[in-house]
Amino acid sequence: MTRPAVILMTDFGVRDAYVGTMKGVIHSIAPQATVIDLSHDIARHDIMAAAFHLLTSEAFFASGSIFCTVVDPGVGSARRAIAVECAGKWHVCPDNGILAGLLMRHRPRRAVELSNADFHLPGNAATFHGRDIFAPAAARLAIGLPPEKLGQTIDPDSLRSDACFVAQRRSGGWLAQVLHIDIFGNIISNLPTEQLPAGRGGVVFRIADRTISGLRRSYADVAPGAALAYPGSSGFIEFAVREGNAAREWGVSAGMKIDVILDNN
Amino acid sequence: MTRPAVILMTDFGVRDAYVGTMKGVIHSIAPQATVIDLSHDIARHDIMAAAFHLLTSEAFFASGSIFCTVVDPGVGSARRAIAVECAGKWHVCPDNGILAGLLMRHRPRRAVELSNADFHLPGNAATFHGRDIFAPAAARLAIGLPPEKLGQTIDPDSLRSDACFVAQRRSGGWLAQVLHIDIFGNIISNLPTEQLPAGRGGVVFRIADRTISGLRRSYADVAPGAALAYPGSSGFIEFAVREGNAAREWGVSAGMKIDVILDNN
Amino acid sequence: MTRPAVILMTDFGVRDAYVGTMKGVIHSIAPQATVIDLSHDIARHDIMAAAFHLLTSEAFFASGSIFCTVVDPGVGSARRAIAVECAGKWHVCPDNGILAGLLMRHRPRRAVELSNADFHLPGNAATFHGRDIFAPAAARLAIGLPPEKLGQTIDPDSLRSDACFVAQRRSGGWLAQVLHIDIFGNIISNLPTEQLPAGRGGVVFRIADRTISGLRRSYADVAPGAALAYPGSSGFIEFAVREGNAAREWGVSAGMKIDVILDNN
Repeated sequence: MTRPAVILMTDFGVRDAYVGTMKGVIHSIAPQATVIDLSHDIARHDIMAAAFHLLTSEAFFASGSIFCTVVDPGVGSARRAIAVECAGKWHVCPDNGILAGLLMRHRPRRAVELSNADFHLPGNAATFHGRDIFAPAAARLAIGLPPEKLGQTIDPDSLRSDACFVAQRRSGGWLAQVLHIDIFGNIISNLPTEQLPAGRGGVVFRIADRTISGLRRSYADVAPGAALAYPGSSGFIEFAVREGNAAREWGVSAGMKIDVILDNN
Repeated sequence: MTRPAVILMTDFGVRDAYVGTMKGVIHSIAPQATVIDLSHDIARHDIMAAAFHLLTSEAFFASGSIFCTVVDPGVGSARRAIAVECAGKWHVCPDNGILAGLLMRHRPRRAVELSNADFHLPGNAATFHGRDIFAPAAARLAIGLPPEKLGQTIDPDSLRSDACFVAQRRSGGWLAQVLHIDIFGNIISNLPTEQLPAGRGGVVFRIADRTISGLRRSYADVAPGAALAYPGSSGFIEFAVREGNAAREWGVSAGMKIDVILDNN
Repeated sequence: MTRPAVILMTDFGVRDAYVGTMKGVIHSIAPQATVIDLSHDIARHDIMAAAFHLLTSEAFFASGSIFCTVVDPGVGSARRAIAVECAGKWHVCPDNGILAGLLMRHRPRRAVELSNADFHLPGNAATFHGRDIFAPAAARLAIGLPPEKLGQTIDPDSLRSDACFVAQRRSGGWLAQVLHIDIFGNIISNLPTEQLPAGRGGVVFRIADRTISGLRRSYADVAPGAALAYPGSSGFIEFAVREGNAAREWGVSAGMKIDVILDNN
């Protein structure tokens, strides 16, 4: 028997029993599923942070995995609840831009709206769709329910998306942007690493009031306390201070601009 | 082979390895069990918070699930360690009021004291019964050990309980109370939602120095920053500020009184 | 089919998706493994805290368990990535002293360096060996890959270790040290409990500017607010204030000295 992964990400935190209750629902329907926490400490209503984590982690999960992502400021409003098949995996979530990063990279194969109330929990609280709509849908995909049973098919082109996940090419380089600050204060940009192979000289980054020259391979390539740019594990160019907190030291936050300037050779 | 859920709730936090070690014990005895975290961030020794989470989540777990709840200020004293069958599930915990919410709603089918030292871990530290007594008992129930092997049968009527989980009916309404403040600052009362069906007008709530009229369905029914009362996903009437933190803004904490006043129609 | 446990400990926190991504890698390779979190809130780069948690928890996991511990200030430098068999379990980690506590107690049976790049993830970021080297190695051990395939055999005597996990015997007692402060502020020493059986009178502890006489069994043996020394669940002598925070009240931190003085009888 297969044991598909159901991957949860929310902004619920883990102090309350909300996430545990979603796991109870999943286990009740799909006892063979392996439930994996991606993060539950997304800042409240920070859809772009959730989109970032999906973008940078989904490739590391097995084909057939089911992501259930609930960062949902519009719960109880008219925003759609959806399930989308994309790059061999399913994404169950509100249609509010959570998939923006993925949709930039992959064309979805199909999408349904979770409109079939037969698969919602009875009672169905208007404030906890994570438990009553999203978790049951993810669990039913995990046991092999044909997706079209969950509700009406929708046009993948109608899914909400934003484009901040792509650095803009311009003469002499890129205008990039800060996608994410991680727990260590490392700064993750939206410039894909394949654009700037490791070891390439002749590139200068300007971020906040700092100028950083060249690409390093790893923290260990600079002295403690020194700044570096490097091809990050996220698949994007990142910035750090070795054994320090770059974002705090430099006053950088998500959304800030980064100038990337190539020299002429 | 079945894969019963063992659901853990503690006030141990997850910075130390205490919870992980309990999971090691459970996996050693019952490798097929699915272990689910309900919460480990219960405020230290806050038995009522644990009771609240059990009450509001247990219905979402499959029949046969085994809850192992360790909020245990009396560890090492004479308080009993127990396993109680209630509403088709088992509860392994100290007998200190953790089951108060459940016992209000369900009559237990049977109960045992975990007095059989053969099923305690050898060594059995007087300060970590979670690892040495509760986790092994939960794991043994998960592999089908007859409960009476765990120790002597006790009278379910002897279990400790308190009654704060029931709002008091009185002329013209109820005297309710704050059961819980969640991570978002939403305020959960002890007035069951079935007492006040959604959409009902003609009800006024007084909490702290605020007056809130009527019941809404969801946050989206009011403007950002506005207050609302609504039938919560907990099964109780809740109070919130849309995109705000009601408990902090209003100065509300667990235990506070709430006046619920019905009009005459 | 067996379901070996893969036990994760890191200093990554759980706000980002780093740990979830490691679990995706493990599930992709070893879908039958049971993944257990020991702690992800190790203070950044605190190798000794990780060593402490391994030492005090590993005995509670089943034989054949695979620990994957990533506290790795030297990621990207020349420090070795290793897998070590010790006391019937595997430890996959950087060779930076994380195993110091275990190596004090057990002689490793064999060790390999994770030098075979065929078992690293393609792409292999220089900053995230947890995902690209350690998690894949742990998962492959979980599915039964012969360890020597992971890389070249190394001499167990060459593994990095430190000796702070042993209190020094001296005339009239021991010179002990604080190994760890837990989330409750309980103070864990490096004096093994078997040296001082519970109930033994005639022992005095001096820690910070406090003097504590005798050994108690549990918190309940003293009044709320009072100090006690007791044989801890860690296997070491611990110090606490009942219903208080001993480390904060006494100004104690990891590494501090403790005088242990036996009387003459």
